[in-house]
Amino acid sequence: MGNTFGQLFRVTTFGESHGGGVGVVIDGCPPKIDISETEIQRELDRRRPGQSKITTQRKEEDRCKILSGVFAGKTLGTPIAVLVHNKDARPEDYLEVARKFRPSHADFTYETKYGIRNWQGGGRASARETIGRVAAGAVAKKILSILHSEFEVVAYVVQIHEVIAKINRSAVKTKDVDRNVVRCPDSAAAKRMEALIERIHDEGDSVVGVIECVVRGIPPGLGEPVFDKLEADLAKAMLSLPATKGFEIGSGFGATRMRGSEHNDPFEMRAGKIRTATNNSGGVQGGISNGEEIYFRVGFKPTATIGRKQRTVTKSQQEATLAARGRHDPCVLPRAVPIVEAMAAIVLCDHALRQMALGSRDRPA
Amino acid sequence: MGNTFGQLFRVTTFGESHGGGVGVVIDGCPPKIDISETEIQRELDRRRPGQSKITTQRKEEDRCKILSGVFAGKTLGTPIAVLVHNKDARPEDYLEVARKFRPSHADFTYETKYGIRNWQGGGRASARETIGRVAAGAVAKKILSILHSEFEVVAYVVQIHEVIAKINRSAVKTKDVDRNVVRCPDSAAAKRMEALIERIHDEGDSVVGVIECVVRGIPPGLGEPVFDKLEADLAKAMLSLPATKGFEIGSGFGATRMRGSEHNDPFEMRAGKIRTATNNSGGVQGGISNGEEIYFRVGFKPTATIGRKQRTVTKSQQEATLAARGRHDPCVLPRAVPIVEAMAAIVLCDHALRQMALGSRDRPA
Amino acid sequence: MGNTFGQLFRVTTFGESHGGGVGVVIDGCPPKIDISETEIQRELDRRRPGQSKITTQRKEEDRCKILSGVFAGKTLGTPIAVLVHNKDARPEDYLEVARKFRPSHADFTYETKYGIRNWQGGGRASARETIGRVAAGAVAKKILSILHSEFEVVAYVVQIHEVIAKINRSAVKTKDVDRNVVRCPDSAAAKRMEALIERIHDEGDSVVGVIECVVRGIPPGLGEPVFDKLEADLAKAMLSLPATKGFEIGSGFGATRMRGSEHNDPFEMRAGKIRTATNNSGGVQGGISNGEEIYFRVGFKPTATIGRKQRTVTKSQQEATLAARGRHDPCVLPRAVPIVEAMAAIVLCDHALRQMALGSRDRPA
Amino acid sequence: MGNTFGQLFRVTTFGESHGGGVGVVIDGCPPKIDISETEIQRELDRRRPGQSKITTQRKEEDRCKILSGVFAGKTLGTPIAVLVHNKDARPEDYLEVARKFRPSHADFTYETKYGIRNWQGGGRASARETIGRVAAGAVAKKILSILHSEFEVVAYVVQIHEVIAKINRSAVKTKDVDRNVVRCPDSAAAKRMEALIERIHDEGDSVVGVIECVVRGIPPGLGEPVFDKLEADLAKAMLSLPATKGFEIGSGFGATRMRGSEHNDPFEMRAGKIRTATNNSGGVQGGISNGEEIYFRVGFKPTATIGRKQRTVTKSQQEATLAARGRHDPCVLPRAVPIVEAMAAIVLCDHALRQMALGSRDRPA
Repeated sequence: MGNTFGQLFRVTTFGESHGGGVGVVIDGCPPKIDISETEIQRELDRRRPGQSKITTQRKEEDRCKILSGVFAGKTLGTPIAVLVHNKDARPEDYLEVARKFRPSHADFTYETKYGIRNWQGGGRASARETIGRVAAGAVAKKILSILHSEFEVVAYVVQIHEVIAKINRSAVKTKDVDRNVVRCPDSAAAKRMEALIERIHDEGDSVVGVIECVVRGIPPGLGEPVFDKLEADLAKAMLSLPATKGFEIGSGFGATRMRGSEHNDPFEMRAGKIRTATNNSGGVQGGISNGEEIYFRVGFKPTATIGRKQRTVTKSQQEATLAARGRHDPCVLPRAVPIVEAMAAIVLCDHALRQMALGSRDRPA
Repeated sequence: MGNTFGQLFRVTTFGESHGGGVGVVIDGCPPKIDISETEIQRELDRRRPGQSKITTQRKEEDRCKILSGVFAGKTLGTPIAVLVHNKDARPEDYLEVARKFRPSHADFTYETKYGIRNWQGGGRASARETIGRVAAGAVAKKILSILHSEFEVVAYVVQIHEVIAKINRSAVKTKDVDRNVVRCPDSAAAKRMEALIERIHDEGDSVVGVIECVVRGIPPGLGEPVFDKLEADLAKAMLSLPATKGFEIGSGFGATRMRGSEHNDPFEMRAGKIRTATNNSGGVQGGISNGEEIYFRVGFKPTATIGRKQRTVTKSQQEATLAARGRHDPCVLPRAVPIVEAMAAIVLCDHALRQMALGSRDRPA
Repeated sequence: MGNTFGQLFRVTTFGESHGGGVGVVIDGCPPKIDISETEIQRELDRRRPGQSKITTQRKEEDRCKILSGVFAGKTLGTPIAVLVHNKDARPEDYLEVARKFRPSHADFTYETKYGIRNWQGGGRASARETIGRVAAGAVAKKILSILHSEFEVVAYVVQIHEVIAKINRSAVKTKDVDRNVVRCPDSAAAKRMEALIERIHDEGDSVVGVIECVVRGIPPGLGEPVFDKLEADLAKAMLSLPATKGFEIGSGFGATRMRGSEHNDPFEMRAGKIRTATNNSGGVQGGISNGEEIYFRVGFKPTATIGRKQRTVTKSQQEATLAARGRHDPCVLPRAVPIVEAMAAIVLCDHALRQMALGSRDRPA
Repeated sequence: MGNTFGQLFRVTTFGESHGGGVGVVIDGCPPKIDISETEIQRELDRRRPGQSKITTQRKEEDRCKILSGVFAGKTLGTPIAVLVHNKDARPEDYLEVARKFRPSHADFTYETKYGIRNWQGGGRASARETIGRVAAGAVAKKILSILHSEFEVVAYVVQIHEVIAKINRSAVKTKDVDRNVVRCPDSAAAKRMEALIERIHDEGDSVVGVIECVVRGIPPGLGEPVFDKLEADLAKAMLSLPATKGFEIGSGFGATRMRGSEHNDPFEMRAGKIRTATNNSGGVQGGISNGEEIYFRVGFKPTATIGRKQRTVTKSQQEATLAARGRHDPCVLPRAVPIVEAMAAIVLCDHALRQMALGSRDRPA
């Protein structure tokens, strides 16, 4: 259970890190949208391992194949299934973790919940699962671009460990983000981040930080008050990503040290529109978008797989030690950037379709 | 849309702050659970206004009535409907806000989304909506207590503005929380918090902070990997509460400044069980509970309704000023404590039932 | 579980026949629709007991109260809760059925499923549960009338036992239906049906038949192929009604004796539109409406509560006999007519909103 | 939308008749169930074309591949994705139907709903979509067999056009069904049916009938009262199959000609259990299984694709004629038998898991 996300734009992912493959079925995509494997592949390539020395050196080609739902380059309105085959596994690489629970991995909890797990790699808890999300995000971005011509979603690294970037949130563009391997648009900070990641990696350790995401061009009115508030669905989307520990929107935890008179966003008229003078709300009020920039931050925990020797126990309840072998990400953030964007786009696309169902433009009365 | 929460323990709230009443329909409650209006009322009384001078002075009796689903003191397995009638409205109190959008309220976004709103009080965006959640939370707590005898959920204020409490998270009990009006178990900090709230209230302003919540007695195995991770559903639950801006579980944003070797929770044998030596994970690994304490923090924004004069615009797009009249909460946190507990219990109860569906104890194979 | 119906127009009913009351929460109703208690009451009055001597003589006033979701006569887009209070129970009337399972009632299955049941009257299995459906149906009809000006739903009795009415399906109107107490627009047949019902009632027995329902003014394009076909959702809606045993759409079981060349509906141009020359399809092809009349039939079983003595067993597994006392419906069909209409309207309204989400009129590409 | 079925055992199908392939994602399957491609293939082979001269002569190999959710022959509790590749299309075979709407097919309604359709073969409306259902049904049957050792589902042809079989419903077994190509366990009737199908096929026409399905070994207590009654979900499942026009459970439409005293199933003690003396209820009372055999019938319409010339119109609204070329099923029923079984198993498996969530065996109180 729990492998489907969304009400109208419904994304179901499947697949373990080893076995036949990973993929996604997207139900609820409107018809007649241009979409191609090339567009989806472009997003997948941004999350692919092996892009630089600060991410894992594993070579995974991750070529996607659209199995259904698209005909002559256009969506049919039927489910879009996208599949990425897995590479052949070398089971002998995983014999140790078949017996020993990796600390802060999902080995122990899966074993307890299900009484069985695919111990080859991360199984279902592997970051490979996010391939399906990124593919669905590519479709969601396309739909949002058609519905709202100003739509744009840009995520980027704002902090690695103690290094904090200075970024003009309202100006940053994807090309600024992809200019360096850290995916941090502040070049000076990015350099320091890269050096830090390399140094800590050399010490057999991992490091992490914060991703910020800004969404522009969303009209007022998206989001359902009460349980399906826009920020609630974004929070769920982000905390459903592997290794995330925190979410904040707009002023976030900073709001806890502000007074009402400081925090409130006064309304004003600007260019003939009702706008807010400040944007502590992060573009959402009462769970509904207000037409301002939507922005939020996601805090991650450092990669659990590290070279250093760690204490653990075995399935047969013996104490043991474990040191990761092979290649792994010293810092997941650069590859997590497109995943955060994908989940943001999926949430917003779902709410855009929900708003259409309300008859936003053809209101019945 | 969006007024239902949960997959198997399904909570649907209804009602505006003015009109007939507010309430909840709870579908999926197992049969033969003892439940009474008295038990529900006890939780409702904790969130009621008028309890102290640091919360709103409005007198709302909020007597609940169980309309269905309970027979001779026991649940039937059928929907439990709980209703709290509203007091008569004085529409003339709201004529100004009928015209002027209150800054950082949901007035503008509701008006834009729906083209109509109940301008008497907060309408559907009122905190009165949470009455239904608290009633459902009382039922959820009862179910969890029966399923897991060690179950306990305790929320409390850990920070107001710059004042930070010192609390032994693993020892704190509800009676410690309810000992003072701030609902902060650190008495010394609570005194300073109370003084701060009063002072800021006298200045016609509002102030806020952070609530922490700890859940004990949850066995390993609850939570669905991928989208319905336990932390994802908790994050959604918390961000669906009015005035919340941030959520973090376990180490939270603090994790972003830790290395993998510091953050990982080593497994060890303790009292014959597999346990973690530390609990940076916050009781959840790979989206599934690991049997340790589950704890998280929720950051709020200060009450938008303040006595000070603020800039805004009217429905007819004229710039204007607005100063709140009447009684409102200078600090929402004390009343939010039982609401946070309620939503935590609802999430955990839903996942407990989902785990039963998997045949946790009667596994088919 | 299972007390909610619909994807976007979501109807949740609650309540047992005895206890506080019965009602409904309607989520997903578009805003700014005119709706009043009077309009809902008009539909409720059509299903109310005590209308004639061929239905139960119980007097139930069934006055509805809108608790939320409507402001100044218009829907807010928030959940509409409607409540009908129950009359005080006389528990002593039910002491016998508290012990003995009524044949072909839900007593035994509820007891087995839940280990508990409200034995006062039908409990949750009572036909009173349909009050919430009829209230929601009134709202659904209103929405459909606004979306599709030609929309009309008319159900009527076509058969009672061996008496079969002759009805011009494409011409029949609600006023023709409500002209007699049987709700059969063929007056001559209605007279014979009425006499038959009375005679069988005098014999301490019950009798039943078939209701047909025709829906006009639905444009082509409603219905989701695969699982949520329009006929699949209609079938579920009808088989979810108490005492239903069969459903057929268009040619129905008659199709099983036709050849493809007889059954196929040839397309032709008529008044500038693509139409079908015949309508064996019943207005639905591949699960999607084709713009023709939608029509279907629902077969009921005779009322299980009869005056005659019947064999049964007690909760303590003793064989026993039981004869119903008090007032009950000798024939449920006349009162079931508005319920069938309500469920048809709920299904179609849900699909109309789903089609809007697809961007029917504002197709994104 | 509408490509997912079930609440806890969730089946999502994807794929058009032409393009990459068709398949299914099954979410909610309990862990540690033995399942293999061989078992799934066995069920798929029963629905495969080309089995006899009374079904289509098309050769489709339909080899299934499990992509995920199974490890070392056992389910993991994660989504099971099953894929069947499509054969290469010959688009030139479909150029005529790309322009002309086939009568009583879904061409016109898809075109109207989506403004686009895959005109190669049936597209999403093709019976190939049921491959995913049959694969999921194989898994559902396996789970039910483990949960309820007496579980058995047997469907069979009871009527073709005017030929009606005589079958002892309570005794019939799968081997009796698969003994002849018609899948009718009455051998004499099967012969006449086969001859009839061949004769009508020679006339360029199609013929059809009724499938009956019996389910044994389901304990009392499955099914959710109100909207998700067992018969309601079965009705939806069956009416969601291509070419179905009617559904009846137990006495079905026959009930409409019975009196209450005839139709009621008296309770009696039998072998120490509460049983019903007759089974007009069809194993379901108040929407919940009562432990008796569940049985129902499904009425189909004749295959729309026939060799005879038919009237129709083109996309550009010109009147035209159309005669099907190529190979098609003169009678769909033999191949529909395993599909009916699959959908029945999916519904019952979903309700079995829902009942476990209620704590059937570990009731909390």
